[in-house]
Amino acid sequence: MFSHLSEFHAWLAQRRRANAYHVAEVPLDRLTNWYSDETTGNLLHRSGRFFSVQGLDVAGAGREVDAWQQPIIVQPEHGILGMLVKEFGGRPHFLVQAKMEPGNVNLVQVSPTVQATRSNYTGVHGGKAVPYLDYFVAPRGGRVLFDALQSEQASWFLAKRNRNMLVQTEEDVPLLDDFCWLSADQIAALLHQDNLINMDTRTVLSGAVAVRRSASGGGGDDFRGALARSAAVGARAHHDFAELLSWFTEAKGHCTLTRRLIPLSSVRGWSRTDRVVQHDDGQHFTVLGVDVTATNREVGGWSQPMFAPRSEGVIAYLARRIDGVVHLLVQARVETGAFDRVEMAPTVQCQPENYRSATTRPLFLQEVLDAPAGRIRFEAVHSEEGGRFYHATSRYLIVEVGEDFPLDVPPRYAWLTVRQLMDFVRFGSHLNVEARSLLTFLGFYDTDADRLAAVV
Amino acid sequence: MFSHLSEFHAWLAQRRRANAYHVAEVPLDRLTNWYSDETTGNLLHRSGRFFSVQGLDVAGAGREVDAWQQPIIVQPEHGILGMLVKEFGGRPHFLVQAKMEPGNVNLVQVSPTVQATRSNYTGVHGGKAVPYLDYFVAPRGGRVLFDALQSEQASWFLAKRNRNMLVQTEEDVPLLDDFCWLSADQIAALLHQDNLINMDTRTVLSGAVAVRRSASGGGGDDFRGALARSAAVGARAHHDFAELLSWFTEAKGHCTLTRRLIPLSSVRGWSRTDRVVQHDDGQHFTVLGVDVTATNREVGGWSQPMFAPRSEGVIAYLARRIDGVVHLLVQARVETGAFDRVEMAPTVQCQPENYRSATTRPLFLQEVLDAPAGRIRFEAVHSEEGGRFYHATSRYLIVEVGEDFPLDVPPRYAWLTVRQLMDFVRFGSHLNVEARSLLTFLGFYDTDADRLAAVV
Repeated sequence: MFSHLSEFHAWLAQRRRANAYHVAEVPLDRLTNWYSDETTGNLLHRSGRFFSVQGLDVAGAGREVDAWQQPIIVQPEHGILGMLVKEFGGRPHFLVQAKMEPGNVNLVQVSPTVQATRSNYTGVHGGKAVPYLDYFVAPRGGRVLFDALQSEQASWFLAKRNRNMLVQTEEDVPLLDDFCWLSADQIAALLHQDNLINMDTRTVLSGAVAVRRSASGGGGDDFRGALARSAAVGARAHHDFAELLSWFTEAKGHCTLTRRLIPLSSVRGWSRTDRVVQHDDGQHFTVLGVDVTATNREVGGWSQPMFAPRSEGVIAYLARRIDGVVHLLVQARVETGAFDRVEMAPTVQCQPENYRSATTRPLFLQEVLDAPAGRIRFEAVHSEEGGRFYHATSRYLIVEVGEDFPLDVPPRYAWLTVRQLMDFVRFGSHLNVEARSLLTFLGFYDTDADRLAAVV
Repeated sequence: MFSHLSEFHAWLAQRRRANAYHVAEVPLDRLTNWYSDETTGNLLHRSGRFFSVQGLDVAGAGREVDAWQQPIIVQPEHGILGMLVKEFGGRPHFLVQAKMEPGNVNLVQVSPTVQATRSNYTGVHGGKAVPYLDYFVAPRGGRVLFDALQSEQASWFLAKRNRNMLVQTEEDVPLLDDFCWLSADQIAALLHQDNLINMDTRTVLSGAVAVRRSASGGGGDDFRGALARSAAVGARAHHDFAELLSWFTEAKGHCTLTRRLIPLSSVRGWSRTDRVVQHDDGQHFTVLGVDVTATNREVGGWSQPMFAPRSEGVIAYLARRIDGVVHLLVQARVETGAFDRVEMAPTVQCQPENYRSATTRPLFLQEVLDAPAGRIRFEAVHSEEGGRFYHATSRYLIVEVGEDFPLDVPPRYAWLTVRQLMDFVRFGSHLNVEARSLLTFLGFYDTDADRLAAVV
């Protein structure tokens, strides 16, 4: 336990020093244990496990661009992202890990207690056992607070889902190297720091908002108070839950998206060099290869392909108070790779660079980019999953618009309270991973500045 | 409106007489507008629409039988099953239709206000417009009470889902021929009658339990009282909701089911004659063809393949009181054709004839078949969807077991309250169609016998 965050930072610096890591870009055709299928050009692991990179033909998306082809990561198995929760001094703490992921700009970030693909925890790569895994695999002790199959970046993954779990224990938990307990308040503070709390932690924490937030609301007239009321049970909402379920079902009914796996070598608009697969106009992302060595991972070294975005993403909610209660503008978004095609997404979610010369730009993007500083309630740059994505960062924003902003929005958008997002996130395949990160920021928004200051 | 159910029966008899129907079995190779693909043997419509009959290879089901092949209906589009609700004299009434379906043993049954495939309501077959459709298609008036994408018979359909909708209106609704208003009490009484309330009505009504049931519970010491408490908001439950979500996620995590479409002509264990496709041991079902004529359907006549089960199904909940609250024994069941492979199903769901000489029989089947009359709280024979299934009937049962029945059940089973089923049914792909029918029987269980008697 840390009584001040400075102790945490010292610990993290010490963990960085304790282990040696090296990540080097290498040509795709020189990746150990990976090969390109002769017929399709697909990138495959020699074991037939882990994941593959294939081509995807997309049509009927009904977005700014309706049809396209792209490389996609295919990884049909479910991994586990699990966080152990325990009360110390009457306050919930979360067991986190200082973990290296080759794609992180700063290599080591804070990850959940367990972050394991099925290949990891069934021992396919012959590595070390996954620590603390027993808390998350039945039959297990402890009390499950949250357990849902959740999608991940649907622009880059086809039908990928991971099991997100929060398990509360009262047992004594031995503390291993690279692990530490953080309180909810400490996590709240650390979420403001760039590239520190990794994606896997953020998505699991979206299920912990109920642990952090009082169910009773209250609060003053400022944004913080309006946010507390938004998270309260029975928060006065612009739409009732039946309307929102119908809005979401309607979006699925209208969805005309079709997806078809195609050979990676035949993807239109993309080319393979000896080193990478890249977009012909330099947009979207590049598929590249890395060699990794680490002293504290399940295996000492490995090679793998990764997706490297060409530009930073912008992921934002417009927030608006309605009768003194914060509402978020949520999009029922056709998600390229999502299992059920439509999920709830932030107001804006894109790489703005891709639309620099486009005639149609994503709705509400300009409102986010032009937001004056006084309207920005949250802003931080965070990394996407560093196990598959290379230097993939996104600017996460919560922008409060005035009460003159229209309540009447296009049919695929709706205003939701934080409590409604909390009710939906318990059911998998409702909030996409970007919306879950933002829910975590909202849920862990410093609800008690004085108390927080004391902790920091 | 009918003040007594005898008036309803007279009306239904009159509707039967007002229209002429004829259904005749014909060989599959003589179905107008249908053909067998030369290479695959698949049964296809010449328009490329409606549905097709193909082969399915199933492995890793983890049920009594782990792997098999079978014919399957492929119909990827979402239809609408919609019911209009309106208060008359302060009580909710449902607009239903006397509708002929070729597979019904008695041809005409009670169907929802709208029961339309996408082909129906987009006019693919060039038939008449679907009455009342405007109430269910955006932009629409009225208040949506329920709107979810729900699966249908997963033993016979691949990934079929229909949109189930309840829309409340306060407008004057013109009453067309073949339509009538039924009160919730009248429907409750009619659900006890064999082969009358069709599957589409039953599944939509599973979303109307909250309309029918008081949220406050109460009730006496008998089954009826314990059932009322089970449907109350905050009913004391054996498992909390987080545990149930985790149990369901766990079942998905354990599921190893794989499915692969194969040519109908190559399905192992099934043979095609000039007339039908049938199982070599005379089990499961037969694929047959019918010619249909009707004077009051969207088109005057048509031909189609149907699935005809070889024996009656048994679909049952074991119910047990826990601390005076009825709990149902629900199964997280690997469902052959279900979109997400695992759904919540009744305790027992099978055709017992298929297990006559099997060494492993479905769990709890014997308890249901051997239940003494005094333990049976509900029993009726109902038809499955008469548009695809020919004379497909199932015996629906709710059997109350004593408090000596073990609470400790195998991991893929759990005890749920009616309120928990009501909370899950709002989210599509949680309760399978058989579980939804039983939820309707539980939800419409005559809560007020005196009032009901007055209505009947």
